[in-house]
Amino acid sequence: MPETAKIKGPLGIIAGRGSLPCVLAEAASARGLPFHIVGIRGEADDKIERYPHTWVKWGEVGKMFQTLDRNECGDIVIIGGVSRPDFSNFRLDSGAIKTLPFILSLGKGGDDNVLSRVVRFFEQKGYRVHGAGDVAPELLAKQGVLGKTKPSADDHDDIELALSVVDALGRLDVGQATVVAKGYVIAVEAAEGTDAMLTRCAELRDIGRTGRSGRAGVLVKAPKPGQEERIDLPTIGPNTVLKSAAAGLAGIAVAAGHVLIADRDNTIATADREGLFLLGLSLEGRDGV
Amino acid sequence: MPETAKIKGPLGIIAGRGSLPCVLAEAASARGLPFHIVGIRGEADDKIERYPHTWVKWGEVGKMFQTLDRNECGDIVIIGGVSRPDFSNFRLDSGAIKTLPFILSLGKGGDDNVLSRVVRFFEQKGYRVHGAGDVAPELLAKQGVLGKTKPSADDHDDIELALSVVDALGRLDVGQATVVAKGYVIAVEAAEGTDAMLTRCAELRDIGRTGRSGRAGVLVKAPKPGQEERIDLPTIGPNTVLKSAAAGLAGIAVAAGHVLIADRDNTIATADREGLFLLGLSLEGRDGV
Repeated sequence: MPETAKIKGPLGIIAGRGSLPCVLAEAASARGLPFHIVGIRGEADDKIERYPHTWVKWGEVGKMFQTLDRNECGDIVIIGGVSRPDFSNFRLDSGAIKTLPFILSLGKGGDDNVLSRVVRFFEQKGYRVHGAGDVAPELLAKQGVLGKTKPSADDHDDIELALSVVDALGRLDVGQATVVAKGYVIAVEAAEGTDAMLTRCAELRDIGRTGRSGRAGVLVKAPKPGQEERIDLPTIGPNTVLKSAAAGLAGIAVAAGHVLIADRDNTIATADREGLFLLGLSLEGRDGV
Repeated sequence: MPETAKIKGPLGIIAGRGSLPCVLAEAASARGLPFHIVGIRGEADDKIERYPHTWVKWGEVGKMFQTLDRNECGDIVIIGGVSRPDFSNFRLDSGAIKTLPFILSLGKGGDDNVLSRVVRFFEQKGYRVHGAGDVAPELLAKQGVLGKTKPSADDHDDIELALSVVDALGRLDVGQATVVAKGYVIAVEAAEGTDAMLTRCAELRDIGRTGRSGRAGVLVKAPKPGQEERIDLPTIGPNTVLKSAAAGLAGIAVAAGHVLIADRDNTIATADREGLFLLGLSLEGRDGV
């Protein structure tokens, strides 16, 4: 899967929400790969302005392609979440009007359907779409215990149940994450995202709806079976660890090689400090992963 | 399933959270069935004090049985959600200490495991455990369109996907409800309950994470396959309709005969006023329902 060697750049980084676009930009800089960020206004973080960049609004499809072409970006990575297009607040440029049927189709269907359509759309225009892990394999979670804390036998039971949940839902193109504690499924992620789900778990714990005695339970993140891994790879970072700690969880388990760790050293150090385990699961051989 | 005729009473109503214990008390009164409510302190609504009642604290198992026996309640209904026992704030009476291994077991496992254990526990003590629908069948959702608004073809597609989600999760003893809009699974219920899930859907809509153009999507509630339907039957009421309306949904579909409507006339009137459809689905013949 790592095909870094094939990517000569310049790399176009189409940037949505969160810290990942900048993390990827750093990784590209570190290996001397030239790049240009196309930031989606209202989604991408202002910090992309530290790097070569251009802002586009939702719907400025023509400007986006012009930017990629002017910077000779034949290779692209699409990274960071985006909201579903809000058609009531949409600026259609001439490039967009030509692709209107495609854009309208983005308002319907599960995440994976939508993302596969986005990838095909760029590929049909002649761009080569890569995953962040193809450009910077060091961003992917490695297998095994990643910090100092080890999961207990109970934790492993919770991990197994959580994997069943992620698997059953993934087949229906729902979520990538769940929280299980003592054999009880506390939360299932759908459109709200992992941070919001963990906040909910902390609230449920605070109001006594779930157990409060000591640290127990696990956050599990894994891609859906057959997921378009070039966009929307499940991601964790230091904030995920802090929110898991606030929810009283014992640790986090992710699919090794299929989940991004946004700031690895800091993420592992935070887990060590909070006493949470951080585990990279080998899911090879499991269905569809 | 309706076995009202068999229940002579007095009926013991073991009351957890929400309005259902009082709704059931009203239904019992209406048919002249004598009853006594055992309210769990910190869970049950103060309104149970309008009816013959006794309060017990979590862990006062001995007092609960004494109350049931003094009132000659051989038939019982357990109704309204309860939190998982919080063992750090637990008053153990002598009845509880004898049943400590059982009580401790309630801290572990999925809802359905826990509830089945509760039913078996009462049955082993010689009580006959009934569902609220056995006592008052009129509380169960009927089949078909229940109000004035009818679901569209798109709504039916969303209902089908939602049923697949509830079905897949139910097999893992998770949740009874999900929200789907335009083929996209917005939210899946686990420990937080339906109201909290709907609040989340409204928030996701407000911040533009899901579509905002017009009313779309459906809340589906159905029991888990093989669910212990004598406790914890999925329930909707006027508040469910109002929260679904706030989340921008087009309607609500529930498993006919397997979901309680807490205040039917008001629930249907609210749906009519808000323009939401309310549908009782025939799920006979589907797996496990």
